[in-house]
Amino acid sequence: MSRIVGFETYDVRFPTSRTHDGSDAMNRNPDYASAYLIVHTDAPDGLAGHGFVFTIGAGNDVEVAAIRALEPFLAGRDVDELLGDLGGLSRELVGDSHLRWLGPERGVMHMAIGAVLNACWDMAARRAGQPLWRLLAELEPRQLVELIDFRYLADVLTPQEALDLLQRGSVGREQRAAALERDGYPAYTTAPGWLGYEDSRLRELCEQSVEDGFELVKLKVGGAIAEDLRRCAIAREAVGDGIGIALDANQVWDVPTAISWIGQLEQFDPAWIEEPTSPDDILGTATIRRAISPVRVAAGEHVPNRVVFKQLLQAKAIDIMQIDACRVAGVNENLANLLLAAKFGVPVCPHAGGVGLCELVQHLAMFDYVALSATTEQRRIEWIENLHEHFVAPAVVIDGRYQAPEAPGASTEMRVDSLLEFSFPAGPAWLGEQVSS
Amino acid sequence: MSRIVGFETYDVRFPTSRTHDGSDAMNRNPDYASAYLIVHTDAPDGLAGHGFVFTIGAGNDVEVAAIRALEPFLAGRDVDELLGDLGGLSRELVGDSHLRWLGPERGVMHMAIGAVLNACWDMAARRAGQPLWRLLAELEPRQLVELIDFRYLADVLTPQEALDLLQRGSVGREQRAAALERDGYPAYTTAPGWLGYEDSRLRELCEQSVEDGFELVKLKVGGAIAEDLRRCAIAREAVGDGIGIALDANQVWDVPTAISWIGQLEQFDPAWIEEPTSPDDILGTATIRRAISPVRVAAGEHVPNRVVFKQLLQAKAIDIMQIDACRVAGVNENLANLLLAAKFGVPVCPHAGGVGLCELVQHLAMFDYVALSATTEQRRIEWIENLHEHFVAPAVVIDGRYQAPEAPGASTEMRVDSLLEFSFPAGPAWLGEQVSS
Repeated sequence: MSRIVGFETYDVRFPTSRTHDGSDAMNRNPDYASAYLIVHTDAPDGLAGHGFVFTIGAGNDVEVAAIRALEPFLAGRDVDELLGDLGGLSRELVGDSHLRWLGPERGVMHMAIGAVLNACWDMAARRAGQPLWRLLAELEPRQLVELIDFRYLADVLTPQEALDLLQRGSVGREQRAAALERDGYPAYTTAPGWLGYEDSRLRELCEQSVEDGFELVKLKVGGAIAEDLRRCAIAREAVGDGIGIALDANQVWDVPTAISWIGQLEQFDPAWIEEPTSPDDILGTATIRRAISPVRVAAGEHVPNRVVFKQLLQAKAIDIMQIDACRVAGVNENLANLLLAAKFGVPVCPHAGGVGLCELVQHLAMFDYVALSATTEQRRIEWIENLHEHFVAPAVVIDGRYQAPEAPGASTEMRVDSLLEFSFPAGPAWLGEQVSS
Repeated sequence: MSRIVGFETYDVRFPTSRTHDGSDAMNRNPDYASAYLIVHTDAPDGLAGHGFVFTIGAGNDVEVAAIRALEPFLAGRDVDELLGDLGGLSRELVGDSHLRWLGPERGVMHMAIGAVLNACWDMAARRAGQPLWRLLAELEPRQLVELIDFRYLADVLTPQEALDLLQRGSVGREQRAAALERDGYPAYTTAPGWLGYEDSRLRELCEQSVEDGFELVKLKVGGAIAEDLRRCAIAREAVGDGIGIALDANQVWDVPTAISWIGQLEQFDPAWIEEPTSPDDILGTATIRRAISPVRVAAGEHVPNRVVFKQLLQAKAIDIMQIDACRVAGVNENLANLLLAAKFGVPVCPHAGGVGLCELVQHLAMFDYVALSATTEQRRIEWIENLHEHFVAPAVVIDGRYQAPEAPGASTEMRVDSLLEFSFPAGPAWLGEQVSS
């Protein structure tokens, strides 16, 4: 019998602000960071699980503190029992009344719970000797339903409806798993579009993206309309007419500004406009969508939980749902989110990039294809080239398509030398830097 | 010239779970806690500001860590400049892109920002030699408008509309300030209603509440319908027909359960039903309100920010808005919340209790009466007897009415002996206790 023996945590930060990687209208100088967790066991084979929260710099230490606060919930527990009831663990952590007060179900503590659950899923997939997407896709519908916290969903999605959706989705899953392993899963790229990049770099990266096989690129907008018009024109010229250009405002607008600004960018035939306003503004997003039709609205990377996703769908506020692997309560809550999208027939195009988000979220999109939505139509996972070298089994995109991971686990394990090199504030990458916390 | 020299923080916890004080259907065993902050200056008179986040136990250390992460934003700054532009400080902290990622505008980091802003408001009121409510009520409407972050409000409340509301509210404010100082502000009491109390205690406390001059008492519900029916009957019998009984479900229901459960409690003529479901479920709360009319719906103590309040009002989801002093970004965001309520003509009945919530929120309700809504009609501040003895200038309720504070500041200062006695985990009150973090 093996037990959980403790948490090992790291505050890892990458100095991305030095090169404007990741710069957008809301986030001018991010230092991509990871509140990183290893859940250790005393299993003879050294079994461990890796999870993290992605942040953009300052406050990453607070996220680490939140993860550490969860250690007492797991320490000493039997590994098999724990991994055999991850639905129970999810409900226990999310439902704990003391921790719940710190959200509820949103922000620092909710993301920390997500990191712990994701680390346990990594462990479960390793123990099963399977990549996470396959482990999930091979679970029976009733097992998947048990993983989900249906609290607050009853008016829209009952366990029975979830079961029906999963049973429908399970038909033909072996064939789709084979197709996935053969063809991969469609990606789009945000590489060209960071707001801090020069026009020449934007043009080159757009051309490069098309050459690399991407059929959709994404540009950051919302800084200044004149710049957006210029940059959209450059991008459209560089990629040509057959390639999609998505736009991302990163929440900088209020409702009337969004409507008028998007009206001016409509001429470039955007594939979607992303995060036009506050992620909490369900009604505002719905108002924007009605006003800018036929331009489509995408949102979700900052949506805190299934309750807000439920309402975005109920209010017909979004055309595309963008789940994030680390914003919500882990794999479990994202299963609920995928089921909500399936219920409403809305395609999911996961948010990725950051540190490790591509690695982790690909498993969820692939599960969705193989065992739930049963299609990749209108679906693409975001791809950003940076920082994959720090992962033991990095995500791989070839010809514009994510390759199905084969290694056991959730692809969340970071290289030990990277953890040490970029530890903040005392790792070699940061020593000598003038930094605030 | 004086400067901010640093933060002093405490993790203070009170073992309230030992007596079931504060127990409700969601929160069975709270240990009321305070992530407590003193902002120190080098002013010759020893000027300092006190603020806090209220939590219910585990994770209070994470909240302290979040407050500490904000120290670099204030350390070294000129006190007069800082206090002269608290609107600017509010926008700087809430808008900081790194910190924003950790919410955005919700949860641990947003509450920490609230504690820092509230500490600065305490400092500003001390420096002005006035209680906070009077300092705010004597500001000119254009000064108040400058304090507010209007981001994401433009579709509902513009700065000009806010100015108009405040100008209208400023007419007669001297007379209302005098009336407030003479008569106080109406309170209601939650003392009788904790779910963990015996029936005999419920009855005695109900009778005592009426004797003490309260015209409204609140009961916790949502544990088991049979118990709720029994307890409501006891309370109704004990208080008589002329006294209001509000009910509080503390978020335990989903939408259909709320509707059927409240249907069974309607016979006791509840003054309102509070938090019938998730605080994020704007559409669900609106559905419940439509279904249970004429029973009124109250919510807000867990609403994370002005964007969600805006929508609760837009969606006609609530009859009563319950601001909380420590859940949002301090006095500044609560000014926005009060203005939204004024715009929609919805009365504000602040959430209080906990540790220090009565002390702080009374200032906001009193400001609202004196300089904005200009009425106490349908308005009451929650009152809970416990833990006031730990404050230097505790809130005082006489004959069912809060007395207007006279001491300079925001009433947020805790006694030093209390901070030491209840420091967690090493204070005398906790030593020898078997505790998890």
